[in-house]
Amino acid sequence: MLASLAITPEEHRARREALLGSIARDGLAGVVLFDPTYVLYYSGFSFIPTERPIALVLAADGAHALVVPRLELEHAQSRAALDRVEHYDEYPGEPRAERVLERVLTDLGLTGRIGADQDGYPWILGYRGPTLSELAGATVVRVAERIEAQMAIKSPAEVALIRESVRWANLAHRLLQRYTRPGVTETEASQRASAEATRAMLDAIGEISSAQSPFASGASAGYRGQIGRGSAIPHALAGDVVFREGDVLVSGATAPVCGYLSELERTMVIGEPTTEQERMFTHMQALQETAFDAIRPGARCSDVDRAVRQYFAQHDLFAFWRHHSGHAIGLRYHEGPFLDTGDHTVIEPGMVFTVEPGLYAPELGGFRHSDTVLVTETGIEILTYYPRDLERLVIPV
Amino acid sequence: MLASLAITPEEHRARREALLGSIARDGLAGVVLFDPTYVLYYSGFSFIPTERPIALVLAADGAHALVVPRLELEHAQSRAALDRVEHYDEYPGEPRAERVLERVLTDLGLTGRIGADQDGYPWILGYRGPTLSELAGATVVRVAERIEAQMAIKSPAEVALIRESVRWANLAHRLLQRYTRPGVTETEASQRASAEATRAMLDAIGEISSAQSPFASGASAGYRGQIGRGSAIPHALAGDVVFREGDVLVSGATAPVCGYLSELERTMVIGEPTTEQERMFTHMQALQETAFDAIRPGARCSDVDRAVRQYFAQHDLFAFWRHHSGHAIGLRYHEGPFLDTGDHTVIEPGMVFTVEPGLYAPELGGFRHSDTVLVTETGIEILTYYPRDLERLVIPV
Repeated sequence: MLASLAITPEEHRARREALLGSIARDGLAGVVLFDPTYVLYYSGFSFIPTERPIALVLAADGAHALVVPRLELEHAQSRAALDRVEHYDEYPGEPRAERVLERVLTDLGLTGRIGADQDGYPWILGYRGPTLSELAGATVVRVAERIEAQMAIKSPAEVALIRESVRWANLAHRLLQRYTRPGVTETEASQRASAEATRAMLDAIGEISSAQSPFASGASAGYRGQIGRGSAIPHALAGDVVFREGDVLVSGATAPVCGYLSELERTMVIGEPTTEQERMFTHMQALQETAFDAIRPGARCSDVDRAVRQYFAQHDLFAFWRHHSGHAIGLRYHEGPFLDTGDHTVIEPGMVFTVEPGLYAPELGGFRHSDTVLVTETGIEILTYYPRDLERLVIPV
Repeated sequence: MLASLAITPEEHRARREALLGSIARDGLAGVVLFDPTYVLYYSGFSFIPTERPIALVLAADGAHALVVPRLELEHAQSRAALDRVEHYDEYPGEPRAERVLERVLTDLGLTGRIGADQDGYPWILGYRGPTLSELAGATVVRVAERIEAQMAIKSPAEVALIRESVRWANLAHRLLQRYTRPGVTETEASQRASAEATRAMLDAIGEISSAQSPFASGASAGYRGQIGRGSAIPHALAGDVVFREGDVLVSGATAPVCGYLSELERTMVIGEPTTEQERMFTHMQALQETAFDAIRPGARCSDVDRAVRQYFAQHDLFAFWRHHSGHAIGLRYHEGPFLDTGDHTVIEPGMVFTVEPGLYAPELGGFRHSDTVLVTETGIEILTYYPRDLERLVIPV
């Protein structure tokens, strides 16, 4: 077997079998999946979503088929280790895509009660069509919750891909920090860091790896506009801000590896930090440590966020609170469960979370580190190893 | 008034009024919108979609509110020219996001029968929650079709933004062609072209423009793996292919300007084209000309695709057919209506389409140009002006 950074066809099969075992217990005849992430998870096929419906059909007996437009036929055949790939010509042309899906459902015996992630292909990018219930004349049971629960526990192979992602995100972030200097723009620093890290990544692991992402081909690092006062807005969009001495920066870096993502974010300061900046930075570090300490198998996600909020309360910091402590991550940049007071999921080994409580002060800036952690049998392993201390996150002027 | 490449608050208001006029005629009490593109279209607010629900609520009497998580409050207030921005703390924390939405619906009188793009916030990125019908105790009427119909007719301001997008996509493509040489990788050429074009774009129009895109900050051009034999797969994903003499390439370039996109794609050949490559290229050009000629106000979208297919049939080319002739474009990279035998929408002035019939020969490669065209009172204006002839699309070796 060749070395490869990928999920094996055997693992895809085991994933399908686990889902089918669960739905068989509920007497469902099979499952239909439309979500591109779910299709990738159970088949290994990654694609650019368009108006053209794509569906993965799994019968309770293990038979399965992928339904794709003609446009994706060779692509699907080359990527997905599936028994059967069926295609229709085009959307919305005749015969309609739905007729092919209908035929596959009949062939595989999906009648009566069937599972689905959603009731039909979503009306995205111009698609308009019937619900799955209408199409199949079947009772559709939503099974997204159990799929999400299955995806939340990462296998060793998945963790290996996330570890690989961490490495290249780390490189992109190292370069971002190096190229961030007063007078330089956000876009220049971000593009230079992302381009160099991507080339290094592809040169280092291109033979054994593929991004498997429709929208990114390598590592990236940037600020999404979270610069200076703008950093007080957690999810700002990228602009073209010029770095200045005194700016507080909140960065973000990642890299898709076979579809899997990690998340690395750091608070950095340009020039000598002020006392007030140091104070907020120290609180932010303490908040993250509080979360790290609270994550362990058997605890609930809500316990972690409650511990973090307790620190907010004890130090009178709620004016600076904006969001929960973190979220799961894997094939999507955000997944459940969430480190949130409202999420009572029990934490289990194999879960991978971002840990990122933040403080946002309108006149001062935003303060947030995000690290990606793996839940182990006894606690956590922090996968992201980029420095967290202020001293090493000061940009010289 | 300052010069600005943006949609004015007045235009956002006019858009809302047009939609409300349509729903009032149906006796609906208002509309709830969850789709990020629709929220942007009617409010000017662009955001990174996450597990946290965001909803734009429009009452039939013109009152409106945007519901956002705490995380997005300042961002929404700074971007959206809206009367009212309401927020909840966090998802899935208590009080639940849905309770705030419920209260806003009550405040604005959305009871009985209400319109919505979909029945509740979609279960994306880990969100799990009730449908809008369950939440509001109302009958939900899907209004996505009329929204799509409204979005399909571009205003002069929208066309101006698409024209601006064309300019920077053209630059990115020019650089892509320049940097594509035997021995260079796809990633190197694409990154260099995209980075330089983005910097030029931001330096030229950064003061008066914003990408308004959560995922791209400037112009981009690349191949998405459609290189050499790989180009026979229309929607391949990016890899790190090394260019070689004899390769047929299918490129793609775009640039978001205030959220608006254009599409420019070209077939290029590295080195002297073979007779067979020339033959396919010539057919591809003729197919595109056929489509250009068929697009005019009053014709149907299906007429255009039927004319294209007639050419396929007359020249015995159906073995190389993979997809329809084009799609509308604007705030999304694919929109309806589609230039497809199954889409009988009547073409109207103000519609903007990509025109891109393609030929894909497994051993030879893919042949597709894509141009963005505006429907005028009498025919079309081809907005993308990049050369289309083979002579100027040959990469020297």
